[in-house]
Amino acid sequence: MLLVKVGGGASINLAGIARDLASVDEPAIVVHGANACRDELADRLGQPTQTITSASGVSSVLTDQDALDVLTMAYAGLMNKRFVQLCQQQGVNAIGLTGIDGALVRGRRNVGIRVEENGKKRIVRDHSGKPESINTSLLRLLIDAGYTPLLTVPILDEESRAVNTENDSVVALLQRTLESRRVIHLIEAPGLLEDRDDPTSVVGEMRFSELEARSHSTHGRLQRKLMAFAAMAASGCEEIVLADGRSEAPLSAALSGQGTRIRA
Amino acid sequence: MLLVKVGGGASINLAGIARDLASVDEPAIVVHGANACRDELADRLGQPTQTITSASGVSSVLTDQDALDVLTMAYAGLMNKRFVQLCQQQGVNAIGLTGIDGALVRGRRNVGIRVEENGKKRIVRDHSGKPESINTSLLRLLIDAGYTPLLTVPILDEESRAVNTENDSVVALLQRTLESRRVIHLIEAPGLLEDRDDPTSVVGEMRFSELEARSHSTHGRLQRKLMAFAAMAASGCEEIVLADGRSEAPLSAALSGQGTRIRA
Repeated sequence: MLLVKVGGGASINLAGIARDLASVDEPAIVVHGANACRDELADRLGQPTQTITSASGVSSVLTDQDALDVLTMAYAGLMNKRFVQLCQQQGVNAIGLTGIDGALVRGRRNVGIRVEENGKKRIVRDHSGKPESINTSLLRLLIDAGYTPLLTVPILDEESRAVNTENDSVVALLQRTLESRRVIHLIEAPGLLEDRDDPTSVVGEMRFSELEARSHSTHGRLQRKLMAFAAMAASGCEEIVLADGRSEAPLSAALSGQGTRIRA
Repeated sequence: MLLVKVGGGASINLAGIARDLASVDEPAIVVHGANACRDELADRLGQPTQTITSASGVSSVLTDQDALDVLTMAYAGLMNKRFVQLCQQQGVNAIGLTGIDGALVRGRRNVGIRVEENGKKRIVRDHSGKPESINTSLLRLLIDAGYTPLLTVPILDEESRAVNTENDSVVALLQRTLESRRVIHLIEAPGLLEDRDDPTSVVGEMRFSELEARSHSTHGRLQRKLMAFAAMAASGCEEIVLADGRSEAPLSAALSGQGTRIRA
């Protein structure tokens, strides 16, 4: 079982990934983002994506009810169905699902973010959460019948409300639950870079054991990504590939040695 | 197998329908619209829903690429996932799918609409089509495993592109394919009205054989609906119920005798 994460950037080559999925000879589960699409829609609707910075300095997207609606339209509506269509055109029988469909991904709503404004502290609680369990029987039902699941947010919280979550966290949970040995991350970069301003500085290979040290020299999303990778090593993951989602054949390239390979 | 069509009007009580689905003791397949949601989104995005009138005087929604994107966001994104969430909160394990997911509904793209503008005739071809076949094995796979499919547009055309279609046509095709004996239509009216301006003039019972004559005194969507109902009589349908989707318990009321019952 191949586990593939497709980033939500505007320049990700979804058509190329769909073409590659048609030639992969093992079943695949794909998790995709749609942040560029979400931000564009939010701007057009005059309610730009807001971020919130916690008192401890961590910044994240604020998902109020309006933002959850925009997210659902962009991720579950436009992007998911575009990707399903591209797969169908390549003969890949894709089926698009969010974490709330068939209670595929259940989790827990975040208790709130402690923020400090004008010297005053308060808790801001939004519609976001952490994934905790996967409905593996639904995934196996679909995969055994020849379907390729294309998954995205939202997920269901403990009271069966839709909440936003990090797609990377869903990928990590899927890896742990399904005990996937290989995970492919298709991003808007040629791989992990020694120098983030130099696209030729791709790290070809590295060990899981090096991830923590390396994460200290990064920040934000990439730092969270690397920490999530480190956790996968303990769950039977043998290889994570970080490769360019913008190339002609992103998945094939990742499978044939391009990008950054993180190994046990 | 209960086949339920839920209209896409703004005042349809989705929460009530979700509650009712939890107490129905046979498996259900639900097809829903989202036209109010679609029109509101289209207006907010500054690209209002356009209609086109054919040279023969038939009016329909024009689905260009932008309109298809808006439709996908409203139907497959916002409305479908809202409905899935409401079902999950009632313990109904709903799974939201469009016709393109798992190639659930395949059809044929319309060849175009002949229009006359300033005395000149031309063909306008949009992204719309007619449904022709249902992937029944996917529906059975899900229903046998305890899931309740919530279906909506778009569907796949003969070249695996997403196209818009009438949800009523999908319901008619589902009825024919699955040989459903009973179909429930939940609409924004108490039933079929003798006088459309008098909500107390509900037709309690009628025969399939009366549908054609009655369709002559109606027009637009309702006329198309009645013609689709007439066709179901020939496909083993024994009862169609047209009932109020705005009431406290729309589906329970429809199943217990309210609204208009059309029988063989």
